[in-house]
Amino acid sequence: MKCELISVGTELLTGDTLNTNTQLLSKNLSENGFSVLYHTILGDNPERLESLIKTAIGRSDIIITTGGLGPTQDDLTKETIAKALGLKMALNQEVVEKIKKFFNHRKLEMTDNNLRQAYIPEGSKRLLNPIGTAPGIMINYHSTILFLLPGPPHEMEKMYFDHVLPELKKINNQTVLSRYFHLTDIGESMAETEILDLIDHQKNPTLATYAKPGEVLLRLTANGKNEEEVNALLDQFGPIIEKRFADKIFSHSPESLETVIAKTLIKQKLTIATAESCTAGKIAATLGEIPGISAVLKMGLVTYSNEAKMQLLKVKKETLDQYGAVSEETAREMCENLYKISRCDLNVSVTGIAGPDGGTKAKPVGLVYMGLCYKGKTNIEKMYFTGDRKTIQARIVHYVFRMIRKTIVKK
Amino acid sequence: MKCELISVGTELLTGDTLNTNTQLLSKNLSENGFSVLYHTILGDNPERLESLIKTAIGRSDIIITTGGLGPTQDDLTKETIAKALGLKMALNQEVVEKIKKFFNHRKLEMTDNNLRQAYIPEGSKRLLNPIGTAPGIMINYHSTILFLLPGPPHEMEKMYFDHVLPELKKINNQTVLSRYFHLTDIGESMAETEILDLIDHQKNPTLATYAKPGEVLLRLTANGKNEEEVNALLDQFGPIIEKRFADKIFSHSPESLETVIAKTLIKQKLTIATAESCTAGKIAATLGEIPGISAVLKMGLVTYSNEAKMQLLKVKKETLDQYGAVSEETAREMCENLYKISRCDLNVSVTGIAGPDGGTKAKPVGLVYMGLCYKGKTNIEKMYFTGDRKTIQARIVHYVFRMIRKTIVKK
Repeated sequence: MKCELISVGTELLTGDTLNTNTQLLSKNLSENGFSVLYHTILGDNPERLESLIKTAIGRSDIIITTGGLGPTQDDLTKETIAKALGLKMALNQEVVEKIKKFFNHRKLEMTDNNLRQAYIPEGSKRLLNPIGTAPGIMINYHSTILFLLPGPPHEMEKMYFDHVLPELKKINNQTVLSRYFHLTDIGESMAETEILDLIDHQKNPTLATYAKPGEVLLRLTANGKNEEEVNALLDQFGPIIEKRFADKIFSHSPESLETVIAKTLIKQKLTIATAESCTAGKIAATLGEIPGISAVLKMGLVTYSNEAKMQLLKVKKETLDQYGAVSEETAREMCENLYKISRCDLNVSVTGIAGPDGGTKAKPVGLVYMGLCYKGKTNIEKMYFTGDRKTIQARIVHYVFRMIRKTIVKK
Repeated sequence: MKCELISVGTELLTGDTLNTNTQLLSKNLSENGFSVLYHTILGDNPERLESLIKTAIGRSDIIITTGGLGPTQDDLTKETIAKALGLKMALNQEVVEKIKKFFNHRKLEMTDNNLRQAYIPEGSKRLLNPIGTAPGIMINYHSTILFLLPGPPHEMEKMYFDHVLPELKKINNQTVLSRYFHLTDIGESMAETEILDLIDHQKNPTLATYAKPGEVLLRLTANGKNEEEVNALLDQFGPIIEKRFADKIFSHSPESLETVIAKTLIKQKLTIATAESCTAGKIAATLGEIPGISAVLKMGLVTYSNEAKMQLLKVKKETLDQYGAVSEETAREMCENLYKISRCDLNVSVTGIAGPDGGTKAKPVGLVYMGLCYKGKTNIEKMYFTGDRKTIQARIVHYVFRMIRKTIVKK
């Protein structure tokens, strides 16, 4: 079924807000067998939205809009869509009560503009919003279904999973499955060359390559009547891909390397500690995003200054004086001393120059030493990363997770 | 001038990649006085792209596409656009040489598909890509200018600033300026109610409200012939907004609260140390993204486990036993002991339950104690945050920066 996403909000067009809603929707819709063919982002402009809705009705089976349902003057999505479809707006008493309750509960004053949220297009179904005051709306219009969802990501996400997905599952009886192959140490064009014969003239399954920081992701997707049929289709290609890339494949999970590694640590009960200089806690924080990590992430030290390296990690003054803070020797002392303090299985250290300042000819911005002391055995890697400060930090984090992977896979 | 953005790539429609390019482009284009009216995201589908280009030519003065210039089979942007405009493709010998050099330099094998990148539409201008192999392309087509840029964000960004923006500045002689007002302790609809009279029937300047995590952002934007004229327009509204919101305004920077605070710390030479439990380094890492932070961010401790709290921060066993790790008493010992260790001006502590597990009736998921010991004086705040794990962590980080702000502004 053809699906179309429309995001409404001038803040998206001016770049003040990053649009993360469409990624979540797209990913989930694809995984459930819906083809997302268009995303369009519009400002709070009724004429352009009306014109787009009329076009979308003609080309898509499912239309999901996000944004423009709020209480303020520039929130015009539902009125505009009602107009485009020739529907009148009607006051919904249930919504009125809900909004009043919401404001009473929070002891906030209710301004008149909040009542605008209680009007919905006639014949449409309102979708409960348990988080905010703007209800979602479902409209059946001839052979097209429209879902109008609020823009704030946590409200949108909750309502998508509570209301939209269950409705969509009723009308879609296709089974769609994907298999993922994360590749490392290979570029995207080289990866594609290896599987060009599989990509050419493909229909079902389809095979796509995606370049990501430090890796290439292959996604093999098939659809059919049931799991058995779909798996049979996937089995035609899966083993071929497996054979061609062999040890370049580091994961089969749809999840990121960081998530996979964090979950592996939890599963294998491998404890970890971090000592970070130029990443300033990003490695620990990345691990910290995974539920359950507290079982293995014992401690982290952000030792930005030389003083902190000496005070917290007992890095020797002579080492810092002789080799500098950004050196193999410092990285080694950092992770080995961390091991003595933490007694964790894995002890990570990072010291480098994230820039934009602080680089020299001998030690340019991007030079980083990364150490991993695994049960007392240490491995140090030296890398030159490129990009701005945030990019260099992100690349270091990714690289450290690859180092961890190599170590715990070997184990 | 009307501007339109088109992002090409199935990975964007399937949600495998988050589209950050359009945010950067939108923001910069708006700031330079271009009205971005449409973003459309399409898969690697030539028919739909061709049809969209024909529509876009009719409604926009400037079209910027990103993605689909790579070496692989599904990269079809330039061929499709050439077709839509009736232009032939021609081999550009300069590009051939550049690609060969790139591969020699990196000692990588050049596959044939890389040569596809050397074909550009006749009469178009190639735009040097100093990072990757895919050149950008500029096409003048009647009264519309098209810029075709590669999809990888760091390549796109560099080429936008090096090539596209200078070209755009030649054709735009408008001056556009914005003033920003970050508000706290007020909701978006209440904020709008306060300035409804200013928003109604506005044309120049325009005033917009944006809800962000923990804050509302007002943006006042005007355009005119020169800075003097634009500032005169802004001066009609700026002081009124200032007066109406008074102490709710915490910043006038277009930057985030976190960035403003980090820069203030650097400027005022206020040193800072962090002790984080459930945020696992996110506060330190957020500070760490700001260039120059190494001057003030002395150390950070991630003390996830009770052992780490005792070992690194000397939190008393009795405190943990009697009050628990998530308690006012623990938060207090964490930041006060951190002060003894770091001797920094500001010492932050966080202990809470980020979830999804670990909550109890008495101490539910979302309960967080945040401590700030400023030159020996301690303030502890208790909050209940909602959302999933990552959202709760983000809200804690934002709240802690607000605490820091209150403390250093009072100073």
